[in-house]
Amino acid sequence: MSDTAGKVIKCKAGIVWAAKDPLTVEDVEVDPPKAGEVRIHILHTGICHTDEYTRSGKDPEGTFPVILGHEGGGIVESVGEGVTDVQPGDSVIPLYTAECKKCKFCTSGKTNLCSSVRSTQGRGVMPDGTVRFHSRGKDIFHFMGVSSFSQYTVVSQYSVVKVNHKAPLEKVCLLGCGITTAWGAVTKLPGVANSSVAVFGCGCIGLGVINGARHVGASRIIAIDTNPAKEAWAFKFGATEFINSAALPPGVGSIQEHLIAITDGGLDFTFDGTGNVSVMRAALEACHKGWGMSTIIGVAPAGAEISTRPFQLVTGRTWRGSAFGGVKGRTELPGLVEDYLAGKMKVDEYVTHNRTLGDINEGFHDMHAGNCIRCVVDMSFV
Amino acid sequence: MSDTAGKVIKCKAGIVWAAKDPLTVEDVEVDPPKAGEVRIHILHTGICHTDEYTRSGKDPEGTFPVILGHEGGGIVESVGEGVTDVQPGDSVIPLYTAECKKCKFCTSGKTNLCSSVRSTQGRGVMPDGTVRFHSRGKDIFHFMGVSSFSQYTVVSQYSVVKVNHKAPLEKVCLLGCGITTAWGAVTKLPGVANSSVAVFGCGCIGLGVINGARHVGASRIIAIDTNPAKEAWAFKFGATEFINSAALPPGVGSIQEHLIAITDGGLDFTFDGTGNVSVMRAALEACHKGWGMSTIIGVAPAGAEISTRPFQLVTGRTWRGSAFGGVKGRTELPGLVEDYLAGKMKVDEYVTHNRTLGDINEGFHDMHAGNCIRCVVDMSFV
Repeated sequence: MSDTAGKVIKCKAGIVWAAKDPLTVEDVEVDPPKAGEVRIHILHTGICHTDEYTRSGKDPEGTFPVILGHEGGGIVESVGEGVTDVQPGDSVIPLYTAECKKCKFCTSGKTNLCSSVRSTQGRGVMPDGTVRFHSRGKDIFHFMGVSSFSQYTVVSQYSVVKVNHKAPLEKVCLLGCGITTAWGAVTKLPGVANSSVAVFGCGCIGLGVINGARHVGASRIIAIDTNPAKEAWAFKFGATEFINSAALPPGVGSIQEHLIAITDGGLDFTFDGTGNVSVMRAALEACHKGWGMSTIIGVAPAGAEISTRPFQLVTGRTWRGSAFGGVKGRTELPGLVEDYLAGKMKVDEYVTHNRTLGDINEGFHDMHAGNCIRCVVDMSFV
Repeated sequence: MSDTAGKVIKCKAGIVWAAKDPLTVEDVEVDPPKAGEVRIHILHTGICHTDEYTRSGKDPEGTFPVILGHEGGGIVESVGEGVTDVQPGDSVIPLYTAECKKCKFCTSGKTNLCSSVRSTQGRGVMPDGTVRFHSRGKDIFHFMGVSSFSQYTVVSQYSVVKVNHKAPLEKVCLLGCGITTAWGAVTKLPGVANSSVAVFGCGCIGLGVINGARHVGASRIIAIDTNPAKEAWAFKFGATEFINSAALPPGVGSIQEHLIAITDGGLDFTFDGTGNVSVMRAALEACHKGWGMSTIIGVAPAGAEISTRPFQLVTGRTWRGSAFGGVKGRTELPGLVEDYLAGKMKVDEYVTHNRTLGDINEGFHDMHAGNCIRCVVDMSFV
């Protein structure tokens, strides 16, 4: 056991005290893990649009003050009573999509959406209803069951998985959300091999789908973005074509009409990686009649709704979504890390920016820049 | 060959001269079939809501004057050059969903939506761009490639299938649309056995889904309608529960909330048989998180759109549709007729009303009555 086991750890974290505030990096006390919990020394974390969505106050379920962050990588510092799957010293990735292997969902064989910690996670607390973070004498809420913007965090044993210690955590931390979400959404879908695919949005999600579609052998991969600089990125990840949807040729109509025209009837598979409900509609309507399937991956603003004419579905298109790529974290994530180490899956290539915890707010700004795919924060430096 | 082969046949048909007009039963001249066409002596036909939809003028693609009707049963009178699959004297069911067995769709193995006659069918003409019906010196348009409201009609060889001559055409004519559409939508879907199902609307479509769900072994079949008189019908076709959605108990919220509450999280499969886009939304949202799948079967009014929050899909629900139940007419319909003859599939039970061609307009009125499932018209009597 480490000499901090069983004790409160004082460390640094980026705290958002109220909606719309920037993060303030300051001291936080992190309680020891209770039974069934794991305390992790977070070494690296990505910043995802979902963090910014909650920080901005647009997330109606956001709770404050809070420690955000859900794409982390670290080392187990100590474990609570009854925890057997991980032990101090293990390289781990915390999981915002838990996997208890016991609930109705986990045992269904149909979904990765575990219900074990869902209700407490949504309220920003641990499964026992309390928090492990305190600062300035106040309780600080957890976020998505992870809170990787703290140098130490506490998570449920169902929300963490051990991965190969040879994997660089400053890279594979990104498997905690975006890359896995995108990769799983396409690679776990039957039938993509030798099929045509269109990917809307070439951020982390879109590029991950492109990379996954290439990996499983899609015959045609059309990448779409409004930023022409994304063309090179799309090709780097495996796209066979790029369309700037903000600069369509005159007379071709909407992006879905254009795609249907150039693909002799539409795509076999489309994916939305934008979170924009109009784009989600275009992605569905660009599918081939009779069999096209569109997958929503992006997270839409609160209250936004998708719509289409039901005829689009009656004539054989299917509309589905994917959360965390359909990946069961504790069962499957270690294998994705191995795929990365074996060179089958890109990870390093997503990292365009690096920051330290001390300038984490700059990382949030980076995200809005067109040249940023992912910013990884080194949590050891303040 | 019959002695009418090769000649124009003068017979009676119900013609709609202009949108919103009632049908007028009068003389029509029916040209002989051209190459690849089949002339059928129609003996019986159902009346479907889609006929009324076009008659009412609400169908933006309706063409007039027209001979409606698409749930027909008859005997082949003569065939055009090159037709080999049916011959004079065969019992046949015309197919509004053609099957050429050659096009991209037919050979895909993924859909029953054949493209061979689609564009001309949609314009109310035969594949060569002309019509076979004339009355009062005017050309009369075809409807859905069938036009079963004429004592004789001409269809493409891809739009007709021979069935067992022992099957009573006054019953199995209904396999030309509603029953097959409903039955196929559920029986061709993997995984319904031992699953929970909710069916919205207990008309011909809803009852057909209930019957099909029971046939494949669904464990729980909840029927939903706003007409309490449909409860007995639902149970007769195999429902295990009935909910009057217009009289929900106080405090249970929306129908989808109520269904989620009484099914411990929602249904495995739901089906809309109403054509109402609000009901389609309820059907989707009543699905179980993680794996629930909702199928749209009903035809919505022109311009109506479905909508929901994308979160419904991202959390594992799938939205799809079904046209003609996914059934390939020439390949699979004869088997459904055998299933009926073997007592596996209800057909007789749908027929609540019978009319003659002479009072076909009364049949349209019947359809609006709460006690009508299907009205079958005897085409031999005027």
